[in-house]
Amino acid sequence: MEEVLVNKLASIVGEENVKNDIIDRYCYSVDASIYRSIPDVVVFPLSTEQVSKILKLANANELPVTPRGAGTGLCGGAVPLEGGIVLDLTKMNKILEIDLDNFCVRVEPGVIQNQLNQELKKHGFFFPPTPGSKKMCTIGGMISTNAGGMTAVKYGVTRNFVLSLKVVLASGEVLDLGGKTLKRSLGLDLIQLFVGAEGTLGVITEALLRIIPLPEETAVIVAPFGDISDAAKTVNSVLSCTIPTAIEIMDSGIIKAVNSYIPELNLPEVDAVLYFEVGGTREEVKKQIELIVETCKSNKSRNVQWTSDPTEKQMLWQGREAAGGAIMNLDKRLVRVYEAEDVCVPISKIPEMVKRFQEISKKYGIPVCLYGHAGDGNIHSGVLIDVRNQEEWGKLKNLTREVYETAMSLGGNISAEHGIGVLRAEWMERIQGAGLEYIKRIKKVFDPKGILNPGKLGM
Amino acid sequence: MEEVLVNKLASIVGEENVKNDIIDRYCYSVDASIYRSIPDVVVFPLSTEQVSKILKLANANELPVTPRGAGTGLCGGAVPLEGGIVLDLTKMNKILEIDLDNFCVRVEPGVIQNQLNQELKKHGFFFPPTPGSKKMCTIGGMISTNAGGMTAVKYGVTRNFVLSLKVVLASGEVLDLGGKTLKRSLGLDLIQLFVGAEGTLGVITEALLRIIPLPEETAVIVAPFGDISDAAKTVNSVLSCTIPTAIEIMDSGIIKAVNSYIPELNLPEVDAVLYFEVGGTREEVKKQIELIVETCKSNKSRNVQWTSDPTEKQMLWQGREAAGGAIMNLDKRLVRVYEAEDVCVPISKIPEMVKRFQEISKKYGIPVCLYGHAGDGNIHSGVLIDVRNQEEWGKLKNLTREVYETAMSLGGNISAEHGIGVLRAEWMERIQGAGLEYIKRIKKVFDPKGILNPGKLGM
Repeated sequence: MEEVLVNKLASIVGEENVKNDIIDRYCYSVDASIYRSIPDVVVFPLSTEQVSKILKLANANELPVTPRGAGTGLCGGAVPLEGGIVLDLTKMNKILEIDLDNFCVRVEPGVIQNQLNQELKKHGFFFPPTPGSKKMCTIGGMISTNAGGMTAVKYGVTRNFVLSLKVVLASGEVLDLGGKTLKRSLGLDLIQLFVGAEGTLGVITEALLRIIPLPEETAVIVAPFGDISDAAKTVNSVLSCTIPTAIEIMDSGIIKAVNSYIPELNLPEVDAVLYFEVGGTREEVKKQIELIVETCKSNKSRNVQWTSDPTEKQMLWQGREAAGGAIMNLDKRLVRVYEAEDVCVPISKIPEMVKRFQEISKKYGIPVCLYGHAGDGNIHSGVLIDVRNQEEWGKLKNLTREVYETAMSLGGNISAEHGIGVLRAEWMERIQGAGLEYIKRIKKVFDPKGILNPGKLGM
Repeated sequence: MEEVLVNKLASIVGEENVKNDIIDRYCYSVDASIYRSIPDVVVFPLSTEQVSKILKLANANELPVTPRGAGTGLCGGAVPLEGGIVLDLTKMNKILEIDLDNFCVRVEPGVIQNQLNQELKKHGFFFPPTPGSKKMCTIGGMISTNAGGMTAVKYGVTRNFVLSLKVVLASGEVLDLGGKTLKRSLGLDLIQLFVGAEGTLGVITEALLRIIPLPEETAVIVAPFGDISDAAKTVNSVLSCTIPTAIEIMDSGIIKAVNSYIPELNLPEVDAVLYFEVGGTREEVKKQIELIVETCKSNKSRNVQWTSDPTEKQMLWQGREAAGGAIMNLDKRLVRVYEAEDVCVPISKIPEMVKRFQEISKKYGIPVCLYGHAGDGNIHSGVLIDVRNQEEWGKLKNLTREVYETAMSLGGNISAEHGIGVLRAEWMERIQGAGLEYIKRIKKVFDPKGILNPGKLGM
C-alpha cells in the first residue's frame, strides 16, 4: 500500500493501531476457513468516529475493506479476498452499558460472547445465542452471520436479540438504528438487513442486545438410540409438548470418534445419541425431565441418563463437547476441512439427511462424522481428507455438491448459522433464486463502489 | 378507470371479482383509520398467478395498487391514497398445509388469525402473535405491520414466526423466499424487508409460519396498585425472574371508563392495574402464580386475585377486554380517534410516559385513557374528541406531537405494532433519520415506478 495512505490511516487510529509489515499481514490473511489472501494493511479502530474516517478514506481511494472480529468464521467471511484493509474490531471490546431495568446491554462489536455472559451472570441474566466458538467469537461477528448455536431451538437466533445497531456505511456515514424498545413497526427495518450481511453493507460499531433472566435450574438428559429414526421421532414428540433449551444429536461416526478420543467416556456405540438440556424453575425442570425421559424410552431408547447436579451435568455433556476434538484426532493423516458443515433441513428430514450424508461419504471414500442441533434441523459435519492429495479435494467438492443438493431437495438450505462468505458464494444463485438480483441492488444502495468485503455472498 | 383496463382485470380474475360501481368503491375507500380515498376499482385475486398478472398490468399503466387484508389497520395503510386498484386479498384465505412434523403452517394472506388458531388448537398448537383484532385481522396484514399483541412479551412479534414468504413484486415477478427450516444464514435476508413494509415493496401471497405447542395450563393474575410506579416496579421484578405470556396495564382513566361501561365489574378505582397471564405445565403455572402474587404484594398491591379456572379466568379478563368498548362509550358526544395510540418506551419509562401523557391530555382538555402491553413498554391510548369541532382536531394534532416527542425523548418510538401508514408518515424523517434516504432507495429497487401503496411510510 502507498505510504501516504498508511500514514493517513495512522493519523486516524494512531501508529500503534496500523500494521503493515508482512508478518502481521500474513497473520490476517486467514480466518478459520480454508481461504487465504494477504491484506495490504491491518487497522485497529477504537471508535465509531475512527471507523467512519477510515471508510471515507477507503471509499475515496476505492480500497477494499474487510471487517473482522475474532476470525472464527468457517466460510472465509473475514478473509480479505481482494487485499486492501482488514478492519480488526477486536479493540472495540467494551461493554458500554448493562441496563437491567430494560433488559438490555449495549456493547462494542469486539466483545466476546462468553465474556459478555460472564458479566451478565453476576446479575442473573444472559444473552442466549451460543455458538460453539463462544469463548472466542465476537458479538459483531455473531450479528454479521446471524449466529445460532445450541440454544436457538428455545431462544431463537442472534437476529431475535438485536434491538439497535450503530453502523458505518461505505461512505463513512453513520446510521443509528433502533433503540431500547422491545417492539417497533416503523416501516422497513434496516437493522434486519445488516444482521447476516457479513460486513458487506456496513461496519457494525455498536449494538444493543436483549438479555433474559438465567433459569433457576438446568438439567441434562442423554439418550442412545439403536436407530436414528427413533431419535428423530423422539425430537418431534418432545417438541410437540415442550421446548428444551437444546436438543443435540450425534451419529454413529462421531460416537466412535469420541470413544477413540476419550476411551474412558465409553459411549454406547449406537446409531445415534440425543443430548437434551432443559431449564426453568425447579418444578418445571423436574416435569421436563420426566416427559423427555418417558418419550425417549417409549421410542426404544435404552439406558437414558439424566441429572441436574452441576458436576454430573458436566460429565454427561463431555461426550458432546468432545466432538470437535475427536474429529480432529480421528485419523492423524487426515485433516478436518470445513465444507458441507452447516446444512439445515426440516426437522422431520434429519434421519434421511443423515443417512444420505453417510451414503455420500461412503461413495467418495471420505470419512464423515455428523452431529448438530436436532431441535432446529441443523446438521454439522466433520469431513476429513488428505489435504496434500489434489484428488481428495476434487472428491470433497463433489461430496459437498451432493450434500447441498440433497439438503435442498429435502426442503433445506446450505447454511443454518455459519454463513456464506467465500465458501458458499457460488451457491448464492441457486439458493436465492430471483432474489439474488435484488440483493445485489440493495448492496449497491449501501456500497455503490463495492468496497465492503468484496467477493463475498456472491455479490 | 378506463373500461378497457377494467375488462382486462376482469379477464384475469373473473367479472365477479372486480367491483367498480361507486358503492363498492366507497366501501373500500376506508380502513379502521381516519383516512378516506376512493379507489378506481376493487379487485379480489384468487391466486399468486392472478396477483402477478394484475401487477404487470398496473405497472405497465402506472396504476397505484393498494393491497388490503381485513382493513383493521389504524393508520390508513389500506387506504388507496392515490386511487387506482385496491387489491383485496381476503378471498385468498386457505390454510394450505399444517405440518406438525416440522412445526409450521402454510397459509394464504387472507387467513384470519383466530381462524388459524381455531384450526391449530385441534392439534394442540398455536400461532402466538395475537393482535386485539385477532377475530378479524389477516395474516397478510399481520406480517405487513409486524403485528405484536399481548403475547409478544413472551413469544415475540410476527417477524419471529415467518419462515417463508411468496411475494409478488411491482413488475409481476414472483419471489419465493425462505423455507421449512428454523434457521438460515444465507446473506441478506429479504424476508425481513417485507415484514413491516405495509405492502410498499410487494404483495405477500403465501406465508409459512412457525407454530408452537399450546401450554398445558394458563392462569390469570390481576393486581391493583395505588401508584403506577409500584406497578412498573412489579413489572421489572417479575421480568427479572420469569417471562409471563402477557403483562397488561390499565391506568386510572380506563379503569373508570370500564366501571361506567360495565358497573357490575366494579374494578377498584386505583392509579393502575396489572393483568398477568402465565402458561406452561401445571407445576410451572403454580410456581409463576406464587412468584407474581408475592412480587405484586411486596410492591404494595392490595387484593391481588388469581385463578386458573377457565370460567373465572374469563371473568377476571373481562375488565381488560372491556377497555375498547368502554372508551367508545365514555362520552356519547365524543368519538374515539386513533392518534398517538401505539407509542412504545423502554419498560422502565412506562410510569413517566403515562404521567406525562395524562398531563398532556389535561393541558389540551382532551380525555385520554391509557392501557397496553406493559411487558414490552407498548402503551395504547383511547383519545376522545368532538370530531365536528375543527379546533379539537387542531388540539389533537398538538397532543399527538407532544406525545411522540415525549416518547422519543424517553428513548421510545411512535409505533410498536400498528405501523406508519398515512397517520405517521410525516414522522418518518424524524424517526428514521439518515436511514430514510436508504429506505427510499430500497423502495426504488423493488418498485421503481412507485405503484405499490403510494403515499405511505413517508416514501
